[in-house]
Amino acid sequence: MNRKPSDIFELSPQIVQGLIGALSECVLEKRVELFQSILEERTRYVTVVLEDIHQSQNASAAIRSCECFGIQDIHIIENNHKFSVNPKVSMGAAKWLNIYKYNHKQNNSLEAVEHLKREGYRIVGTSPHASDVSLDNFSIEKGKFALFFGNELNGLSEIVLKNSSEIVKIPTVGFTESLNLSVSVAICIHKLTARLRNSAIDYRLTEREKAILLLQWLRLTVKSWRSIEKRFLAEQLFHNINK
Amino acid sequence: MNRKPSDIFELSPQIVQGLIGALSECVLEKRVELFQSILEERTRYVTVVLEDIHQSQNASAAIRSCECFGIQDIHIIENNHKFSVNPKVSMGAAKWLNIYKYNHKQNNSLEAVEHLKREGYRIVGTSPHASDVSLDNFSIEKGKFALFFGNELNGLSEIVLKNSSEIVKIPTVGFTESLNLSVSVAICIHKLTARLRNSAIDYRLTEREKAILLLQWLRLTVKSWRSIEKRFLAEQLFHNINK
Repeated sequence: MNRKPSDIFELSPQIVQGLIGALSECVLEKRVELFQSILEERTRYVTVVLEDIHQSQNASAAIRSCECFGIQDIHIIENNHKFSVNPKVSMGAAKWLNIYKYNHKQNNSLEAVEHLKREGYRIVGTSPHASDVSLDNFSIEKGKFALFFGNELNGLSEIVLKNSSEIVKIPTVGFTESLNLSVSVAICIHKLTARLRNSAIDYRLTEREKAILLLQWLRLTVKSWRSIEKRFLAEQLFHNINK
Repeated sequence: MNRKPSDIFELSPQIVQGLIGALSECVLEKRVELFQSILEERTRYVTVVLEDIHQSQNASAAIRSCECFGIQDIHIIENNHKFSVNPKVSMGAAKWLNIYKYNHKQNNSLEAVEHLKREGYRIVGTSPHASDVSLDNFSIEKGKFALFFGNELNGLSEIVLKNSSEIVKIPTVGFTESLNLSVSVAICIHKLTARLRNSAIDYRLTEREKAILLLQWLRLTVKSWRSIEKRFLAEQLFHNINK
């Protein structure tokens, strides 16, 4: 699994706060307030996993929907299809998210499943053929969950289906067997995040997660963040030596 | 406006029933039952209007979603962009729907608005910038409504916005200004048809509408429908002469 940017996680809370302060000086106050209000609605209680999607238009629209509905982490499994984003469709949404890719092996689905299980996620498959749980009846209360979406032609792999504790279906009433992939992702997360925000569940990020993300977003906004952070850290060192 | 197939509307209820009987003999009973169960959930209480969409992928996914959620009529306004369907995305959904096109003039938006007003529809715009009504608060009780969606770049035209009695917005909590077009269509109709089906509103088709549509669908299924109908009508004529 690839993780980016990794270095922030190793910094102490005090240093993260200091860097946020230093970078915030270069950004309009309104912009920092926007970051903070968006952070308040970010969640890792739901995460979305895309398994081997082959149309970049679908992947891009899915990422855009996740960003719009406050889902911070997206997991991308690349087995036969390399994931690519169409910027005209994603509208720059990807840069605000944490995107984790699984692509080192021939088949990477099990690695993603096991990683998410270790992180405490329920593995939840989605399929138009499932007779298991309809989206309306899916319980958000049983703990945080990773929603897996399979590719346009074959749906989810056997590996994911076998490892799913539940398989969710969006009820439809027409001839067409299934919805478009990016549409399925959007309907599921729109519905489930709305229920989450109306529930008593603590779906929000921790203060530590918010601070790390704020620093990540400030770095995306301040062109010279590297030199500003370097100067700040040098000053810290100087202070500590002269204490 | 183009309307297809127009001739069924001119047939008497008795003749329509007779033709349904004749064509049904060529179709598996299970298939006819499927048609009837789908007809029960079809609605014209909501209709979707796509104004000048330029990506066929979006138009196709929107049509697929309408079919899946039971919306029978789609209106397509072609001003600068010719509407085209990508069969890989629409999955054949279009053939089960009534698709009305407005494309004879330079600008056809007003014609669509006026036609739908005459048919008794509320004209409802959608926009990510609207401060008017959030999707959650939109009243489905005030009468049947036509949901207008504008194109990917510019949104709805001034003509549609000015003629809208309400402008609906899907609430989002991220940086990205708007959702993908086909995603917006899907979220609106998923949400509003679900509310409709849980309400006391009489959203279903009339018996006459169901019969016309059933005949339309049987014609799509029976290859030799023309000769079967001709034979049936000739027999009718023969009976009437000999009565």
